[in-house]
Amino acid sequence: MSSIKKSDKILGIDVNSIIKNTFSAHSKSTSNSLQQTLDEAFVHEPKQFKQVTEFLSEKVKSAHIELYKGYIDSFNKISAKLDTANRSETNSRHSEYRSLKFDETYNLNATWLHELYFANGFDPYSEIVMDSFSYMRLQRDFGTFEDWQRDFIAAGLSVGNGWVVTGFNMFLKKYVNIIVNNHSDDIHMGFYPIIVVDMWEHTYFRDYLTDKKSYLISQMKELNWTVIEERFKKAEAIAQVLK
Amino acid sequence: MSSIKKSDKILGIDVNSIIKNTFSAHSKSTSNSLQQTLDEAFVHEPKQFKQVTEFLSEKVKSAHIELYKGYIDSFNKISAKLDTANRSETNSRHSEYRSLKFDETYNLNATWLHELYFANGFDPYSEIVMDSFSYMRLQRDFGTFEDWQRDFIAAGLSVGNGWVVTGFNMFLKKYVNIIVNNHSDDIHMGFYPIIVVDMWEHTYFRDYLTDKKSYLISQMKELNWTVIEERFKKAEAIAQVLK
Amino acid sequence: MSSIKKSDKILGIDVNSIIKNTFSAHSKSTSNSLQQTLDEAFVHEPKQFKQVTEFLSEKVKSAHIELYKGYIDSFNKISAKLDTANRSETNSRHSEYRSLKFDETYNLNATWLHELYFANGFDPYSEIVMDSFSYMRLQRDFGTFEDWQRDFIAAGLSVGNGWVVTGFNMFLKKYVNIIVNNHSDDIHMGFYPIIVVDMWEHTYFRDYLTDKKSYLISQMKELNWTVIEERFKKAEAIAQVLK
Amino acid sequence: MSSIKKSDKILGIDVNSIIKNTFSAHSKSTSNSLQQTLDEAFVHEPKQFKQVTEFLSEKVKSAHIELYKGYIDSFNKISAKLDTANRSETNSRHSEYRSLKFDETYNLNATWLHELYFANGFDPYSEIVMDSFSYMRLQRDFGTFEDWQRDFIAAGLSVGNGWVVTGFNMFLKKYVNIIVNNHSDDIHMGFYPIIVVDMWEHTYFRDYLTDKKSYLISQMKELNWTVIEERFKKAEAIAQVLK
Repeated sequence: MSSIKKSDKILGIDVNSIIKNTFSAHSKSTSNSLQQTLDEAFVHEPKQFKQVTEFLSEKVKSAHIELYKGYIDSFNKISAKLDTANRSETNSRHSEYRSLKFDETYNLNATWLHELYFANGFDPYSEIVMDSFSYMRLQRDFGTFEDWQRDFIAAGLSVGNGWVVTGFNMFLKKYVNIIVNNHSDDIHMGFYPIIVVDMWEHTYFRDYLTDKKSYLISQMKELNWTVIEERFKKAEAIAQVLK
Repeated sequence: MSSIKKSDKILGIDVNSIIKNTFSAHSKSTSNSLQQTLDEAFVHEPKQFKQVTEFLSEKVKSAHIELYKGYIDSFNKISAKLDTANRSETNSRHSEYRSLKFDETYNLNATWLHELYFANGFDPYSEIVMDSFSYMRLQRDFGTFEDWQRDFIAAGLSVGNGWVVTGFNMFLKKYVNIIVNNHSDDIHMGFYPIIVVDMWEHTYFRDYLTDKKSYLISQMKELNWTVIEERFKKAEAIAQVLK
Repeated sequence: MSSIKKSDKILGIDVNSIIKNTFSAHSKSTSNSLQQTLDEAFVHEPKQFKQVTEFLSEKVKSAHIELYKGYIDSFNKISAKLDTANRSETNSRHSEYRSLKFDETYNLNATWLHELYFANGFDPYSEIVMDSFSYMRLQRDFGTFEDWQRDFIAAGLSVGNGWVVTGFNMFLKKYVNIIVNNHSDDIHMGFYPIIVVDMWEHTYFRDYLTDKKSYLISQMKELNWTVIEERFKKAEAIAQVLK
Repeated sequence: MSSIKKSDKILGIDVNSIIKNTFSAHSKSTSNSLQQTLDEAFVHEPKQFKQVTEFLSEKVKSAHIELYKGYIDSFNKISAKLDTANRSETNSRHSEYRSLKFDETYNLNATWLHELYFANGFDPYSEIVMDSFSYMRLQRDFGTFEDWQRDFIAAGLSVGNGWVVTGFNMFLKKYVNIIVNNHSDDIHMGFYPIIVVDMWEHTYFRDYLTDKKSYLISQMKELNWTVIEERFKKAEAIAQVLK
């Protein structure tokens, strides 16, 4: 049988006084246990990616890996700082915790988006099977596969500096394309990312200059639909969960 | 047996010329089918919410519902416009499609966040069971339940204008708190929202003036852990999918 | 006669090695002198404002002053930290200096915008003279004075959370209205602010709920055109400088 | 003798009803005169710039001019649309006027910042005179000229995607460095730009890959202090105006 914990007891009747007590009572013991709990959880190691393509130069490929590692390095540092950051004096204007939270989101998204991008492209033998979830769901939610392509290109070319992503919106329960600004702005809440193309200028400007349409299409020509299909299967399983 | 569709065939060898053909060949027929497909899918109806609480005045409650309905109205208009927006001349500086996509994200997030918020609060009999997923997962990922409270308050007070949300990060595979700016900035990619408190000034300034800490704690005292537990169960099922 | 200082000498021929030398050679001595120079310059004191109006409740007025003082307090703290912040290891992902610079802009703008707003409104005897710069320039650049009003209202109602400002754009060399998001986004480079109305929800939601149009018009009815005329005179003098 | 125009008469006693009358009474006649007034004012022509430097490749230089012209083209289109955009039904969620205003700021800033950047660099004979305003003011407000360099580099390397700018802050009445995100975020209100270096990846990634420090220093080595001195003189004259 489970014990009952009334939230009234947790935060108390006199809201302001009680929460202060909670803060001081726990501040020593919990900050240690918190630190121990989180210390390992947030350490992320860079993965190895082969970018097999003739559409990008070797120098761009290796520079891109360097940038990716920079985000991981920053994210790990931020996570460690957040373990012990002062949570009792934050405000909406200026505090260490607040800055760390923004940088956490920025570097965390940058890390994952790069990993998704490196893994879902670079397949010179790219092909999509018509009875795959990939094909069927894009067809269902965009009208035709070509309509998805058209919308993906339109979204990609609309990016000032950021990402174009096809993913599953958990509220709409359908697949949509989104335009991400930088790494963390203009993102759908509850969005599981599936097809990711980097539209920062560092991905295309060296090899394509201002012709970002050719870059984008080159990436679309080498999408690894085997990797993408695994993500669609997960999205479909998520869709089942949310029914 | 499934047919094979090579992506080379789809987008062609001469990238620039082929994609143009694709565009013109399909532009008539598909824009119609696209429109039909999407027309109904995106129409969202406002839901009914009872905000049972003495911590907020009646006028704030009804004004809040009015704002919520405004976002739904805008979202439905945007969705209809996106069905037929010109996708062949977008760019990263100025185009109808680009503006619509930003407004889509803004109003879509605003709609869902408000629905999550209205549904997960306003329970005067709020209590959390210690062997619930809610309690156990917050304990596991934050150290203790009080550590989660402390971090949630710290995050909430760090919001300039926006939202504080506890949710499941699908990359880290753990529960974290995030600070959302406005409705669509500083959001984690792949984030399933679970505990949502509105930190726009319209929620608290009338009743609490600058004392947003008392507002935030009042909301935390009336969290509906039954509703939240259902979301945690879904997040746990999503976690299983992503293993 | 003036000495010549070649910039080649300053940063050296071998760019990377020299700049490092410069950094270490100066780091001790200059960080002290820098600190002394800046220490006083950035300390800003709150000003006294009487908000004489019946369009806003007393509680909103005093809460607003409290918020204003919070920004000044944060700005002064940030300025002090920036005096000695580590400038040799900044990057675009995560560094103390970078966070401080963003917070500097945010709090500095918030401080000045509030001061401009408090000073240019709250005149129950508001009247504008037709041969004033205020009237003539708004007429010249917007078509008619009513066109300025119309555009100002349109801009004000377009603000999600932020400010509507009439000012002098130093590039266009004309007066325009801008929509500022929060305190520091979507701002014109080279923009001298003249007529400022706060459109954060804390200014109107308590007294007007969702009817922000009535709030905005109430502010426009009590604009202090004497204060504004002084600003227009300065803008005109700036226009002369830029000819 | 000037006529007096009471603002009460302009906007009326019954705020809501009167403003509607004003709108309808003027909507026909003024929208025409407004259009005529603005039509020419906002048309901006690209300027010619010689980018004399060996620090950037020819391809980057010409691509950069192409991007610059794109912003001017967009800005001119936006200005024309704004002349006649519907101002009577704007809101903070979704309206044509609102989108146009954001795009106006974005493209206007991009245009001017590029012009400032093209004009203030690319001088292989770069040298700064010690009794110039440039030298004396940077020394006064940063401690030493080297301190300005150090802060400018720190700010430049902190940019994710955007600009580093030295300019005159009209509120602080001193020269400061700012970090601009993209083209219009994190900008100081009332900021006259003087020394501008583009830190978008399109300026350096092709020639310097991830070594943006070498790019930034190369730009600083070729700053055209004659052009910059003219801007400092204007800033000094503005400082006099604001006394």
